[in-house]
Amino acid sequence: MRWKCTCSYDGSDYAGWQKQPEQLSVQQVIEGVLAKLLKEPVAIQGSGRTDAGVHALEQVFHFDWDWRHGGKSLVKALHALLPKTIRVESAVEVDAAFHSRFSAVSKRYRYRLKLGEADPFQWPYCWPVPAQLDLNLLHAAMQALVGKHDFAAFAANRGSGLEYETTVRQLTEAKVSQDGDFVDLFFRADGFMYKMVRSLAGTVVNVGLGRLPLSEMVALLSSAQRAPLVQAAPARGLYLEKVFYS
Amino acid sequence: MRWKCTCSYDGSDYAGWQKQPEQLSVQQVIEGVLAKLLKEPVAIQGSGRTDAGVHALEQVFHFDWDWRHGGKSLVKALHALLPKTIRVESAVEVDAAFHSRFSAVSKRYRYRLKLGEADPFQWPYCWPVPAQLDLNLLHAAMQALVGKHDFAAFAANRGSGLEYETTVRQLTEAKVSQDGDFVDLFFRADGFMYKMVRSLAGTVVNVGLGRLPLSEMVALLSSAQRAPLVQAAPARGLYLEKVFYS
Repeated sequence: MRWKCTCSYDGSDYAGWQKQPEQLSVQQVIEGVLAKLLKEPVAIQGSGRTDAGVHALEQVFHFDWDWRHGGKSLVKALHALLPKTIRVESAVEVDAAFHSRFSAVSKRYRYRLKLGEADPFQWPYCWPVPAQLDLNLLHAAMQALVGKHDFAAFAANRGSGLEYETTVRQLTEAKVSQDGDFVDLFFRADGFMYKMVRSLAGTVVNVGLGRLPLSEMVALLSSAQRAPLVQAAPARGLYLEKVFYS
Repeated sequence: MRWKCTCSYDGSDYAGWQKQPEQLSVQQVIEGVLAKLLKEPVAIQGSGRTDAGVHALEQVFHFDWDWRHGGKSLVKALHALLPKTIRVESAVEVDAAFHSRFSAVSKRYRYRLKLGEADPFQWPYCWPVPAQLDLNLLHAAMQALVGKHDFAAFAANRGSGLEYETTVRQLTEAKVSQDGDFVDLFFRADGFMYKMVRSLAGTVVNVGLGRLPLSEMVALLSSAQRAPLVQAAPARGLYLEKVFYS
């Protein structure tokens, strides 16, 4: 039987989602706990990677195991064994045709900015930017990104080990939301490339700070070429918020 | 000249305030940064210790140095060098008679409870307790602590390396405040002993959960004897909130 699980994690202390040699990843921790629980190695498949330091509010993974005690007891057993920085929130039995990555139709990321300085407790969870950030300009820059575009200018291939069949993605939502001194950027698309959200966030913030004219950002998008002008925002402000399935 | 500084820190990754061999303390990090800035070793004096994992919203320390560029520039220079989990918020020149520890007239601590489970982002900053915690009982337990008492029952001498002249303290404030799923306990006194706040928090929570009758807590306080019944709440929920000077 196939289990679909959702989990949240504080990515601060992990080398990202994906298992890799000699570094502690979220996937590795969960697989380790499952192996302990089920007394055999189990491979889990995530909906996608998150980078080192990136957080998740609702990452999805699946795995196959003949667990006969129901989803609630699986969640309870995992809770007892997992570190507190990783929580499996739900486990439901799904059809064998379900695949956490290939069945996903879209994903939403949140990028959290802090206007002004971050205190020691906010620091691991946001990116502090100068308070003179122009929210109207920021909003305009976000709106210019919505739609179907070749986002090659905002993809970092180098170091990702990933080859993309296409760099065209459909961004269906690019929203700005303010909550006191925090400003959240929401990005929803049918898919994201390596460092794409952080590159988009870094760029719209540069527009909002008056460091990059909006017209240049639009030209950059049209160019479909990665440029040194595009700087990725730090990982710690980024959250995988939700994975959508049809 | 003498400088009085206030600082905040996320204690998660530090072995407490006090300098000690082979472990990274907040004091050691600040002294290291000052030595780098001033090109000579400088000793700082904190208002008191905080345990490993305990946070501070406004710890106070002082040091003597002939710094001629004003408090603002000192704060700015420290900010550039300190890790983001420690922030020096202010630096003001004070009279040589000022002493961060001996001039303090009282301190306020906050202990943060979470009703129900903590998510991965809340975990390092609170103590999750069962949601059936009775806030009226908790409040009554807190009120029973107010006043001048021998708090020996709530002091942990062992391992502290501290000898107390007296275990009598005056608790002037013991307040409960709810903020959604968070419940904050505030303790203000003329002084606190090693693990005293955490022992008080652990005990009033046991009363609020119906595990310890209020009358037994009162008897415990009167006994002025440490008992195994007294369990210290975890360090991560505790914040040194403010140090008061006359």
